[in-house]
Amino acid sequence: MAGNSFGELFKVTTFGESHGKALGVTIDGMPAGINFDLDFIQSEMNRRRPGGNTLGTARNEGDEIEVISGVFEGVTTGCPITLIIKNTSQKSHDYSQIKDVYRPGHADYTYEAKFNVRDYRGGGRSSGRETSMRVAAGAVAKLLLNQVGIKIKAGTIQIGDIKAENIDFNHDFNNELSCPDEDISTKMVELIKKAKDDLDSIGGVIECHVNGMIAGLGDPCFDKLDALLAHAILSIGACKGFEIGKGFESAKLYGSQNNDQMKMVNGEITFLSNNAGGILGGISNGNEIVFRAAFKPTPSIYKEQETINKNHEDVTIAIKGRHDPCIVPRAVVVVEAMTALVLADRYLVWRAYDAR
Amino acid sequence: MAGNSFGELFKVTTFGESHGKALGVTIDGMPAGINFDLDFIQSEMNRRRPGGNTLGTARNEGDEIEVISGVFEGVTTGCPITLIIKNTSQKSHDYSQIKDVYRPGHADYTYEAKFNVRDYRGGGRSSGRETSMRVAAGAVAKLLLNQVGIKIKAGTIQIGDIKAENIDFNHDFNNELSCPDEDISTKMVELIKKAKDDLDSIGGVIECHVNGMIAGLGDPCFDKLDALLAHAILSIGACKGFEIGKGFESAKLYGSQNNDQMKMVNGEITFLSNNAGGILGGISNGNEIVFRAAFKPTPSIYKEQETINKNHEDVTIAIKGRHDPCIVPRAVVVVEAMTALVLADRYLVWRAYDAR
Amino acid sequence: MAGNSFGELFKVTTFGESHGKALGVTIDGMPAGINFDLDFIQSEMNRRRPGGNTLGTARNEGDEIEVISGVFEGVTTGCPITLIIKNTSQKSHDYSQIKDVYRPGHADYTYEAKFNVRDYRGGGRSSGRETSMRVAAGAVAKLLLNQVGIKIKAGTIQIGDIKAENIDFNHDFNNELSCPDEDISTKMVELIKKAKDDLDSIGGVIECHVNGMIAGLGDPCFDKLDALLAHAILSIGACKGFEIGKGFESAKLYGSQNNDQMKMVNGEITFLSNNAGGILGGISNGNEIVFRAAFKPTPSIYKEQETINKNHEDVTIAIKGRHDPCIVPRAVVVVEAMTALVLADRYLVWRAYDAR
Amino acid sequence: MAGNSFGELFKVTTFGESHGKALGVTIDGMPAGINFDLDFIQSEMNRRRPGGNTLGTARNEGDEIEVISGVFEGVTTGCPITLIIKNTSQKSHDYSQIKDVYRPGHADYTYEAKFNVRDYRGGGRSSGRETSMRVAAGAVAKLLLNQVGIKIKAGTIQIGDIKAENIDFNHDFNNELSCPDEDISTKMVELIKKAKDDLDSIGGVIECHVNGMIAGLGDPCFDKLDALLAHAILSIGACKGFEIGKGFESAKLYGSQNNDQMKMVNGEITFLSNNAGGILGGISNGNEIVFRAAFKPTPSIYKEQETINKNHEDVTIAIKGRHDPCIVPRAVVVVEAMTALVLADRYLVWRAYDAR
Repeated sequence: MAGNSFGELFKVTTFGESHGKALGVTIDGMPAGINFDLDFIQSEMNRRRPGGNTLGTARNEGDEIEVISGVFEGVTTGCPITLIIKNTSQKSHDYSQIKDVYRPGHADYTYEAKFNVRDYRGGGRSSGRETSMRVAAGAVAKLLLNQVGIKIKAGTIQIGDIKAENIDFNHDFNNELSCPDEDISTKMVELIKKAKDDLDSIGGVIECHVNGMIAGLGDPCFDKLDALLAHAILSIGACKGFEIGKGFESAKLYGSQNNDQMKMVNGEITFLSNNAGGILGGISNGNEIVFRAAFKPTPSIYKEQETINKNHEDVTIAIKGRHDPCIVPRAVVVVEAMTALVLADRYLVWRAYDAR
Repeated sequence: MAGNSFGELFKVTTFGESHGKALGVTIDGMPAGINFDLDFIQSEMNRRRPGGNTLGTARNEGDEIEVISGVFEGVTTGCPITLIIKNTSQKSHDYSQIKDVYRPGHADYTYEAKFNVRDYRGGGRSSGRETSMRVAAGAVAKLLLNQVGIKIKAGTIQIGDIKAENIDFNHDFNNELSCPDEDISTKMVELIKKAKDDLDSIGGVIECHVNGMIAGLGDPCFDKLDALLAHAILSIGACKGFEIGKGFESAKLYGSQNNDQMKMVNGEITFLSNNAGGILGGISNGNEIVFRAAFKPTPSIYKEQETINKNHEDVTIAIKGRHDPCIVPRAVVVVEAMTALVLADRYLVWRAYDAR
Repeated sequence: MAGNSFGELFKVTTFGESHGKALGVTIDGMPAGINFDLDFIQSEMNRRRPGGNTLGTARNEGDEIEVISGVFEGVTTGCPITLIIKNTSQKSHDYSQIKDVYRPGHADYTYEAKFNVRDYRGGGRSSGRETSMRVAAGAVAKLLLNQVGIKIKAGTIQIGDIKAENIDFNHDFNNELSCPDEDISTKMVELIKKAKDDLDSIGGVIECHVNGMIAGLGDPCFDKLDALLAHAILSIGACKGFEIGKGFESAKLYGSQNNDQMKMVNGEITFLSNNAGGILGGISNGNEIVFRAAFKPTPSIYKEQETINKNHEDVTIAIKGRHDPCIVPRAVVVVEAMTALVLADRYLVWRAYDAR
Repeated sequence: MAGNSFGELFKVTTFGESHGKALGVTIDGMPAGINFDLDFIQSEMNRRRPGGNTLGTARNEGDEIEVISGVFEGVTTGCPITLIIKNTSQKSHDYSQIKDVYRPGHADYTYEAKFNVRDYRGGGRSSGRETSMRVAAGAVAKLLLNQVGIKIKAGTIQIGDIKAENIDFNHDFNNELSCPDEDISTKMVELIKKAKDDLDSIGGVIECHVNGMIAGLGDPCFDKLDALLAHAILSIGACKGFEIGKGFESAKLYGSQNNDQMKMVNGEITFLSNNAGGILGGISNGNEIVFRAAFKPTPSIYKEQETINKNHEDVTIAIKGRHDPCIVPRAVVVVEAMTALVLADRYLVWRAYDAR
């Protein structure tokens, strides 16, 4: 209700502020008896961590997972799994610049409008650092999904106005953007560097593919699988748009173009296209799930901007500190994680109601 | 969990199938003592009803609201409000065409994959007729929002590849598409008629504006206001995409372009632009909320298509009966209704936690 | 949140007032493909119905179940099942006696304190007639539980200070109190008749037994099976107490007396006693579940009582109309129904997490 | 769903095992801007801590609260508050006695039936040590309730068959049982010591009083305030019974005896008795709330008992280690805490719907 939980059967609650003692997550609903592969979870954390590539900042947050509960002798116990990462670099920062000023494009103003108090240290709870715990929970969800062969893979397909042309997800991505088009990725990297040089930032688009789907996940009416995915993905701080399958393009099409016709091919039920993106009537059809998410440029820029302060006076701000010129590369694993949370949840719902 | 409820404090549960006895909705969480304006609710129903314009079908579903509970002497009592509409035209239909065949683009196949049984009469629960109850509930939500001055207005801004150019929402829309651009709307109507003549259907885009917002609605992390809106809007059957503010366009922008800078103007806190669409960090900033939703062409078309049947044999189908060549005009009020459900819910959450 | 829903996976929402158009229930979460035995459901309704025995009132409410949705060709579809009963005897009543007066022991005063409006017709939503929908939902839950052999049986074991001595539940109860002790039941009936003759009412105790339990139902910490049962049972209007196993008696015992020791008997895991009432640490141990619920005397009595009215003036009231001198006999099936709702819910949760 | 959360608007999630790294609680839904009185919270922890009195064990668990998140500059921020206590005495224990044996009266067997794995270290998640986090959360809830003058006080009124005679809660309790009857309390202490000397344990009853209630808390039908209290209290490990007001005694009464008649006294709405225990129709009437909870003797006893092991062989066990001969004195603050959680939750629900 207060917004820090997600999921119904695979229920995740996150806590912690950017510059508080620690960030953490409690997963209530992981079935018992599953091998808890901590190395995998840590490797997922490392994919999100800043300092992991040449594009981000010099920060090295560490983000080492500590297991507090729910795991015994290497397996899950059915009891709540709590994972935390400590904020090691809790040195005394200078917050005088942002303490009383609302940074444009940030949640500073709205948090204060809502709560009347604000933890201004590094954005507090509204910091992108909050997504670390989504990645941790998503990694646990992937452990569950792995058991039934569901595989999630996201990649960068657009930075600014540069779009990947060859969007083939069936190979390893060998670039720091996780872009499926290796050639185009170098141009994307240049654009990010240019934005950085301009004291600015740039947005982008992430595409996500899910394979090995069970037909029948998702629930009618309000808990349609794509609606839950949209909820999950839009809940990532900088996300401004979501589309499934053909998405906004489908608005331009005729029904005869957009419908995925069916045929038996080698004895298998086969869709002749996948404009739906793997979901029909809110329920997975067994096809690959494909969706895209638009991310705005990170609002923290070094350029001077107009804004107001707590006393409602006009001021200008050129945000100091270390910040990414483009959040997209680090958001790839966050998109996967949120997808995993939705699918793990609906997989358990399916077990409750529909598994035969 | 099973998907037929939406909202936490303003909680809506819908039930009923397209060709069953009745469709209904229970609203659990409408505060007591509010005048229950049944005429307004019925007028909202009429906006969705088929046969209300020249574009749709000849069906006239009636959709007359019957109040079962929760209202006494003209005001809400704080107890659950149940509204139903009877399916008056329950005459004996001929379902032989669709009984055993999976219509392309419909939920026939996925419902059967999930439930192993299927109410094939008019699509059963997966029918667009289910949205009537969203409209009924949304109308009740609007009664609550009216009390605090929150106003919701949606309109058609694109049909196929024809886009409105003048998107001004501050006037009455005098065309059957609820399109803000009266001139372009006639071209849109022509395109819909063309699709109909071609035995085909066509998609479109709806934009929604909310004014009179309280700053502070929405909740951090997973219940961001835009995430909840995305969930709500994507849960409408034919919706394939959602974007808030600049949406997918923001992916192309630099931070210095996308950030909404602030200034005191005539003593009022003012955003110099509204690229965010009225929501920052998931919390309303008091600005107009603006979002768009993409709708696919209705999958029911008269053209012949390839598909399979229950016995997993290849067949063709040219869907008979009455169906809309474009669902968009009728979906306008459904988009408003889902928006109202989200805002009524978060308004109550705000009262619980944040009202001062 | 607003209180009219119960359960998480087997989720029930009830609506309707005593003298409104109809009462109804929506069950969201009944798995698909289960034979919908309407005769059984109606027979459960008849167990609760007034006028079914010599002890109650002359009212004959009918309570005929109408199926609105969720059932097709005799089986459940996985979509919400809505059942209603119409209030046939909606003739014009004279409410002048209770319109402005708070009946002692009733919810009249508290509903007005809470909602500031009150549907005074027959108690509105706070009427015992609301339990009819619990029985309807409970009957559907029993259809699910029957599939795995879980059987629920409740009976009257105390009326006033008369207690059943022979509490054997393994036979049919052939008296209108559903009392396991046929001999004592006649004394109980006499006491109820005496209360009636005295223009008064009398309380009692119901005991409930559940057999065929799966070991492992219920969830740690806050969703202990006995906690959920207590919640369910105390939510029945007139219930004032709940105890599981030895209950309040266990407070007097030593650990060595109260612990249920274990032994292998004929190769079966066997508890040497059942003081726990079939639940340990909140999780079913496979033993018979046994609990008791205390019911207060119905507050509606013909005797004159002191109270106040809406204008906060002292008045007296001798409640007219038809009311039961003892609610206990009709509450037996309500206790069973609430038990069934809890068990159906936790059975589905167990399928999601624990079934192997 | 998996049972480790409680409450809807004031939502508490606990985690951690008896002998794991730490126990913790996340409170999602504490309003912002409330002074976070850590000394008070710690003092509540100390009331539950073992070793605090002569009756318990020599263990000194410390239970020092560490604040992880949600508090900034001494006030709550509206973001999730996470509190933990570290398990300092994590020295290497010898678990060989209980590793493979099901202790009678414990959850060992049922956890294994449910999860197929079991953290046997000190009972893992099923340990009474889990209640420490209820106390921490309850203390935070009390900070909220204090703001509106709601006061909760529980005390021991029965140990074994010794009952307090003078149950006056309007004075400080000066005995280590928190018994309102100072004279009888010495006899109770003797009985506990006798049980200890006999290598046995003993049960008891706790009564709880709530003053300063707002009329109108609690919600109709399934979320009746007494039903929520019953749920909360029965969820405490050793609790076997709950009764509100006259409770089981009311089953013996006539309506004319049990109804609380009303009168205007000095211009105040006054109930002439409080047999209802402050709740009518599930909604608080403003009167003192009074309820009782029965606790079984702690199942851990030094006496030899029969049981079985994992291999389904008969064995005997005389449980070693340090355990309380009576859990009741330490459960007093746990009962208060669970009461506070229910009331804080329903107070927020009331703010959302009903506050005028």
